Amino acid sequence: MIARTFLLGVALAAMTTLPAHAAPSADDAHPVLTNAAAISGLGAQTEGYPLFTAELTRMRKSVDAAMKAGIDVPVPKDPGGGATHEQHKRNYMALYGAGMLYRITGDKRYADFARDMLLAYAKLYPGLGPHPAAANEAAGRLFWQSLNDSVWLVYGIQGYDAVRDALPPQDRKMIDEQVFRRMATFLSTGSPKVFDRIHNHATWANAGVGMTGYVLRDQDLVDKALKGLDKSGKAGFLRQLDLLFSPDGYYAEGPYYQRYALQPFVIFAAAIDANEPQRRIFEYRDAVVLKAIRTSIQSTYGGYFFPFNDAMPDKSLKTEELYQAVAIGYAKTHDPALLSIAQWQGRTVLTPQGLEVARALAAGKAKPFPFTSLLLRDGPDGNDGGIAVLRDGPGTKDQVLVAKNTAQGMGHGHFDRLNWILYDNGRAIVTDYGAARFLNIEAKDGGRYLPENESWAKQTVAHNTLVVDETSQFGANWKSATATPHQLWFSGDGQIRGSIAEMAGAYPGVTFRRALVQLSVKGAKSPLVLDLLRVNGSKAARYDLPLHYAGHLIDTGFALKSNVTTRPVLGQANGYQHLWVDATGTPAPDNGVVTWIEDGRFYSYRVATPGVTMVLGESGANDPRFNLRREPFILQRLDGARDAAFVSLLEPHGRYDAAAETTTGSESAVRSFTHRREGDVDVLTIGWRNAAATVVAIAEDTDPAHAHTLVLNGKAQSWKGPVGRFEMPKPEGKSR
Amino acid sequence: MIARTFLLGVALAAMTTLPAHAAPSADDAHPVLTNAAAISGLGAQTEGYPLFTAELTRMRKSVDAAMKAGIDVPVPKDPGGGATHEQHKRNYMALYGAGMLYRITGDKRYADFARDMLLAYAKLYPGLGPHPAAANEAAGRLFWQSLNDSVWLVYGIQGYDAVRDALPPQDRKMIDEQVFRRMATFLSTGSPKVFDRIHNHATWANAGVGMTGYVLRDQDLVDKALKGLDKSGKAGFLRQLDLLFSPDGYYAEGPYYQRYALQPFVIFAAAIDANEPQRRIFEYRDAVVLKAIRTSIQSTYGGYFFPFNDAMPDKSLKTEELYQAVAIGYAKTHDPALLSIAQWQGRTVLTPQGLEVARALAAGKAKPFPFTSLLLRDGPDGNDGGIAVLRDGPGTKDQVLVAKNTAQGMGHGHFDRLNWILYDNGRAIVTDYGAARFLNIEAKDGGRYLPENESWAKQTVAHNTLVVDETSQFGANWKSATATPHQLWFSGDGQIRGSIAEMAGAYPGVTFRRALVQLSVKGAKSPLVLDLLRVNGSKAARYDLPLHYAGHLIDTGFALKSNVTTRPVLGQANGYQHLWVDATGTPAPDNGVVTWIEDGRFYSYRVATPGVTMVLGESGANDPRFNLRREPFILQRLDGARDAAFVSLLEPHGRYDAAAETTTGSESAVRSFTHRREGDVDVLTIGWRNAAATVVAIAEDTDPAHAHTLVLNGKAQSWKGPVGRFEMPKPEGKSR
Repeated sequence: MIARTFLLGVALAAMTTLPAHAAPSADDAHPVLTNAAAISGLGAQTEGYPLFTAELTRMRKSVDAAMKAGIDVPVPKDPGGGATHEQHKRNYMALYGAGMLYRITGDKRYADFARDMLLAYAKLYPGLGPHPAAANEAAGRLFWQSLNDSVWLVYGIQGYDAVRDALPPQDRKMIDEQVFRRMATFLSTGSPKVFDRIHNHATWANAGVGMTGYVLRDQDLVDKALKGLDKSGKAGFLRQLDLLFSPDGYYAEGPYYQRYALQPFVIFAAAIDANEPQRRIFEYRDAVVLKAIRTSIQSTYGGYFFPFNDAMPDKSLKTEELYQAVAIGYAKTHDPALLSIAQWQGRTVLTPQGLEVARALAAGKAKPFPFTSLLLRDGPDGNDGGIAVLRDGPGTKDQVLVAKNTAQGMGHGHFDRLNWILYDNGRAIVTDYGAARFLNIEAKDGGRYLPENESWAKQTVAHNTLVVDETSQFGANWKSATATPHQLWFSGDGQIRGSIAEMAGAYPGVTFRRALVQLSVKGAKSPLVLDLLRVNGSKAARYDLPLHYAGHLIDTGFALKSNVTTRPVLGQANGYQHLWVDATGTPAPDNGVVTWIEDGRFYSYRVATPGVTMVLGESGANDPRFNLRREPFILQRLDGARDAAFVSLLEPHGRYDAAAETTTGSESAVRSFTHRREGDVDVLTIGWRNAAATVVAIAEDTDPAHAHTLVLNGKAQSWKGPVGRFEMPKPEGKSR
Repeated sequence: MIARTFLLGVALAAMTTLPAHAAPSADDAHPVLTNAAAISGLGAQTEGYPLFTAELTRMRKSVDAAMKAGIDVPVPKDPGGGATHEQHKRNYMALYGAGMLYRITGDKRYADFARDMLLAYAKLYPGLGPHPAAANEAAGRLFWQSLNDSVWLVYGIQGYDAVRDALPPQDRKMIDEQVFRRMATFLSTGSPKVFDRIHNHATWANAGVGMTGYVLRDQDLVDKALKGLDKSGKAGFLRQLDLLFSPDGYYAEGPYYQRYALQPFVIFAAAIDANEPQRRIFEYRDAVVLKAIRTSIQSTYGGYFFPFNDAMPDKSLKTEELYQAVAIGYAKTHDPALLSIAQWQGRTVLTPQGLEVARALAAGKAKPFPFTSLLLRDGPDGNDGGIAVLRDGPGTKDQVLVAKNTAQGMGHGHFDRLNWILYDNGRAIVTDYGAARFLNIEAKDGGRYLPENESWAKQTVAHNTLVVDETSQFGANWKSATATPHQLWFSGDGQIRGSIAEMAGAYPGVTFRRALVQLSVKGAKSPLVLDLLRVNGSKAARYDLPLHYAGHLIDTGFALKSNVTTRPVLGQANGYQHLWVDATGTPAPDNGVVTWIEDGRFYSYRVATPGVTMVLGESGANDPRFNLRREPFILQRLDGARDAAFVSLLEPHGRYDAAAETTTGSESAVRSFTHRREGDVDVLTIGWRNAAATVVAIAEDTDPAHAHTLVLNGKAQSWKGPVGRFEMPKPEGKSR
């Protein structure tokens, strides 16, 4: 514990008379990271903007509590979730908060608190070596990984910038040199491997160092942050904007890390814009920063991020990163759709940008965010596949199908080329496990990624895509996972919505192509999903196609051989060792259906894959420390095939209402589901219970301009592009 | 399909001029079941009462849709959840709705629709024999069990009563005789075993028959309904009020069936009150009907009923039964606390009573419902144990501990004497499986109770109470399960809240006593729970104490022997065959702790049971049809003991915040937990991490007037009643 000291007799101009933002000079100390004048001394004037007022109240409560608790700058000791870890996190939050509160309220106590804490860091920091709990990743000084140190710096420098002109020169000098310059040096020249990477850890380091450069009026630090340690532009913030985002603003590591990475991108961009407007940073690369904000929001369902790659499924738009991103995005674009996101978040930030959001919301300017179907291309040039998002509507309960046809996404990427997930009725139905990790829970390996993240969560079998010979794509080696899918076709609107993508190189000699079609049907509450996965291999192999789902199994159309007294595991390695087998079965052509219920809606998964064996089971085997969630799966298995086609149909239907004790539509509306190949066209026929039928024809040739013809019920039918859809009326005289 | 016919030229007085309620005579046809004049012709006048207006809109939409669909009175065929089952359910709802709508709006189309439907029933009903899908239980005619027929009658007669005076005499006669008198006859003299039971099925039958008696002006039917077929009073509605409720208004089958049973009790009581006010039915037996309404509400957490016995966990106060009960209760008592329940329900009923609720709510008269700790005694005389409810506060997230020390509760009762459950932080934490059933889902045995309800859900091991030699209490035979617990002590307020109960006779030669203490501790967000279960047996036995919980296991203090590659089952029968064993372990005296997380809060379950073996596992073995939910359990096992004490402590602690990525208090605040016996006092000592301690002393003698003394840290401490609590400050100079 460092005793609090109080500095008396420092006279300050009233906050309301602070100079407006001006060009920085080496001598002045006024805030440079934001247009602080916009919020200075606002105080009670925020009352007309409830979102801002609420934020002010919340921050006051939090910082006042931190002030009451006294300054606590402990010697670093614990890993993530431990006491010193959490205290240093609380400190940077309190520092940031005290800075904002000082600007807004003009209350000198906040500046004093920030100074006292920073003086304590000035005593502690210079003596620190590598963190004692450092693990595999780059060691920090305050935290077990340097990433957290960078985050400390991003928050800390913002708080410091806001109070710096309230400090006497000797304190300012002490803090400048002993805290911020040392941290910036450690995180830049002292950590070249991290700083010059093309990776989100580097983005945080770049942002922290660059903002420190602005505040210390040190252009050298700024230039290193923007262009890498050698200032060549081969690394640094601008290069990351070039390489980490696709032309559609999709971030290479996927939505979960896009959220995380977004904060340093938007905050540093705003700081660059404030200090070097001539860089036109928000227009850089066709406005990729603003695209990234919108793409983040599009990559959610009910506000929760699609949990691809190493992702925690409980992450939503209600996070600090997105409060910042929405505020900065709105201040730059005045797009009223961003306001409805802020409304849903119920939060904003205590910055000039947050004030703009709160003002505009209070003025009733919000418009609905245009959630829509779209293809988010991956790769710096947009050529590395992408994420295909098919939305049945913009509502929070409308069905969304997401096909993951992206590149690897580096070390946090999963081996899941041509994976897909489905949301329906407000819930995740076809699921992605995400990461095996209990974030910040110390008893679970200090909150770090668990061994099961490698042995299970990243493996191909943990996803809804093809597994060859019980191995993972690319042998589960991400450094060799360079081959990417080709997105062959995408259609986001109308009666024929779908995605076709192809993957070669994930398994030696194997090419597979997947068509996913979202099929709106009259009278159905939600679309059906057709899934055609064709494999071409160079030799006979075991092909598995898992489907991980959420819900309680209700019924199967085929007989099951059940393991009810001892439960075996499915395999030995590559994730298979984590799968318990509950039952297996071999469906006949007309009974390959499994039905489950989730939140009062039924889902029937129907397969027309000839010769398939079905495996039903659950994750959680070989898990002595209870690190895994236990979630059900269905697996289609084909043995000894070289070329094969997995043909599946998922149908949401019916409703069980617990309060009213009523059930409707618990039976599938589908009577039959068949597949045949005619020339280079796959013909999938859904026979309805009323004896009508829907035929979906999928051509090998995916050129949207090419026409195809097929004879159905004796009549030639034509369509353009790869997918055709035809309704066959029910024959005369037939009924259910 | 019966063609709709329209009756023309029937002149009716305008609804607003209908005569007010008058004594019935054999000739008149005006409504008798409610004071229909209160709502007659209200129409647009309901606009100031939004709850009623919303109900009107909802009912109109539903009945208009039914009218548009046309009358469909199918020949009975399907079991629960099937098409004919659901159609007959829809019909009685539509009939009831049409009746209410006719009264409120005066729109003759509703009366015509009710008449047409009833005429269709008049054609169908007389020809019906026992239902073709009848199972074990008493067969109905319209439905697979006669219970549903009774429910049809309860709704149908109310709808008919409301339109009867709008019908021409010949139609009225046809419907009187061919539908209602036949149904009433079938359900009374035609089904004597059901009608004269003391059981909720009989209550529905009594209510339907009795109300039919009032409507048909047939006092004989009324008298049979009130006093049984022989009118002796040994059966019938009044006898059920005597025997099925305790003096505290607790219903013998438990909260779930209390909800279900409540509807015929309150509706028939209201009808009796309207027709025979001299019976003072709402004052009967110290106002037991009104007590039953309040007790139902007290038996909930967050609006959901405690899921004891055969219960579906998704049942809340948002059900038709409780809309009726709250409206009838409010109309009778004008207790403003009932209004807040109606507010939470967001619903009411289209009756004069519902109108009163809506009016009072619109006038802002609602007050919070006084959720509180209480002992709900069981048994007609209150001597058969009871349910001890310990609430940490009235809020929806406040901790609630419920000890189930009741009698069997007949055929839907579980073998779970001295079971307990815990809610905390808005969630069920220590759980009761409830029933093994998928209500109204046809693919699951027609929606009936599943075989696993007998083999698992009712068995003792499926509950959180003592199991002797892997068998269930009373050999799982409910007819011989006559012995009841003794509630020895209950304290619902202050620093010492708890329940002590004793059970003898559930196992031959075994008596066991359980003390559960809810321990509020300064600084803890939620109380800790102390659990002392002492067993005295006549011979060495295997004693098991399961704890079924909700959450993800985080850590154990002791080493585990895990079954990670094949998973065995725990036993062969009595529910044990449904338990998978994940791991076993033998804790040392200082490390017997298991920690899990649920919804961001940690729970540490600490045992101080000497010589105990711990079993960790999950339900779901021997379940080839996936009928069971898979839920985790911890089991304490003692082998070869005669007398034993299971000593456990459950501590909620900490918080994981996913949005803010912060974790606090993930470590238990408890450093040690010990138990010793001094004379006739059990001494449980909780040592805190800060070196202070809390001692709870539990005396054998449970007389609340008796004083006890114990020497603690060299100082004599005294207390009165069985439970004493003493805080030991931390010794000088010690810290964490």
